[in-house]
Amino acid sequence: MRFTSEASLGGVREQLFVLGEIPGVLWTPEDAVGSRPVIVFGHGGGRHKKAPDVVNLARRFVTECDFAVVAVDVPGHGDRPVDEEYNRIATQNQARVEAGEDLAPLIAGFQAMVARQTVPEWRAVLDAVQQLEHVGVSPVGYWGVSLGCGLGVPFVAAEPRVRAAVLGLGGILAKAEDAGRITVPVEFLVQWDDERVPRDQGLALFDALASADKTLHANSGKHGDIPEFELDSTLSFFSRHLA
Amino acid sequence: MRFTSEASLGGVREQLFVLGEIPGVLWTPEDAVGSRPVIVFGHGGGRHKKAPDVVNLARRFVTECDFAVVAVDVPGHGDRPVDEEYNRIATQNQARVEAGEDLAPLIAGFQAMVARQTVPEWRAVLDAVQQLEHVGVSPVGYWGVSLGCGLGVPFVAAEPRVRAAVLGLGGILAKAEDAGRITVPVEFLVQWDDERVPRDQGLALFDALASADKTLHANSGKHGDIPEFELDSTLSFFSRHLA
Repeated sequence: MRFTSEASLGGVREQLFVLGEIPGVLWTPEDAVGSRPVIVFGHGGGRHKKAPDVVNLARRFVTECDFAVVAVDVPGHGDRPVDEEYNRIATQNQARVEAGEDLAPLIAGFQAMVARQTVPEWRAVLDAVQQLEHVGVSPVGYWGVSLGCGLGVPFVAAEPRVRAAVLGLGGILAKAEDAGRITVPVEFLVQWDDERVPRDQGLALFDALASADKTLHANSGKHGDIPEFELDSTLSFFSRHLA
Repeated sequence: MRFTSEASLGGVREQLFVLGEIPGVLWTPEDAVGSRPVIVFGHGGGRHKKAPDVVNLARRFVTECDFAVVAVDVPGHGDRPVDEEYNRIATQNQARVEAGEDLAPLIAGFQAMVARQTVPEWRAVLDAVQQLEHVGVSPVGYWGVSLGCGLGVPFVAAEPRVRAAVLGLGGILAKAEDAGRITVPVEFLVQWDDERVPRDQGLALFDALASADKTLHANSGKHGDIPEFELDSTLSFFSRHLA
């Protein structure tokens, strides 16, 4: 793990790093000493590790909960090089949608393929940040919706250090098996008028989670319209389960 | 409106009253002066105006939000006399369930009948408490699940003073028309493993609400198992919309 830059603003220390070929960012309280819960963030499709919604929520976790937050660029996103193979498949899928195929199964299959790369990458990132003196070993949370849910469900299923997860804006397709292996508390976000994820598929993914303690929050509005007050709820959720 | 007793505990003033034949209770901040939002509470089936869950949440509204809370006994409950007609129908319904009929439509029909009495009763109670100097005229909220939802949906649909409502543990049957007339913000509670309200009927009631701003919170567990943290969410919801 190699740190490439560092800055502090408003009590939050931001360190950019590279782990192998993975560019990432770590946010911690300024002058943090000792171990603390860390939230792993999975960003949305076409976005990147420092997308405004990620930064906004990450800063709140640091300043209001004293947590650490880590996010990395998904392959083909942010500071990572174009991935020829993923690009080829995305282009094919686009053509298939234009020819009348359903979007949801194509997205689900694509995300499942990318997850086979990101699950080991994110586990390696977690290994690395937990060795830092100002992060250390404490319970881990995962936050990710949309693409961050497609990649997050297999990650949370595979990684026993994750003790609580916020997921959502994703459907059951290609995720049923992994969902059935998730037993930690989950807060699951649904947009009631989601134009990309059919409502029944989102509800079915929530239903498939094996967690005894799971909460679904559905709000009116489209895929990108998660209301601001859900972020307050996310903070309460992780405080309840990790702090 | 005739007050029959009064007590104060921990900053909360509790006044029992009778309005006509309706026994009720009003909670306000001790030494409250001037107008404040009031939450109308609809209690659950077989319970009463001072059921522990009502008292617990009412005290939080008073101490944490500076609101007033009013609750009355539903006909046939609490301090009200046995209602021969309702009792006869309830006994008939019990026999029909034992003979194999579905419970949900029978409950829905029964609640719709009782609502024809409670809607005007609750509006009269609201008229009366808003004339009190320590309650006054401010935005009104409604909180009610289960029976409190069955009676609450027609009440919220009929009463323009209600500006936000928490509803839930109820299904679409016999409520679709009223739900389509509700346009205020709603937080709607579903228990994912509800043994009394079929899941699809609960989701359909949420779907039928005409509110542009509506949130569904579904938690794992049975009808009576609403988790404690939902009460925190309820407080945030009303603070956001009434304060």
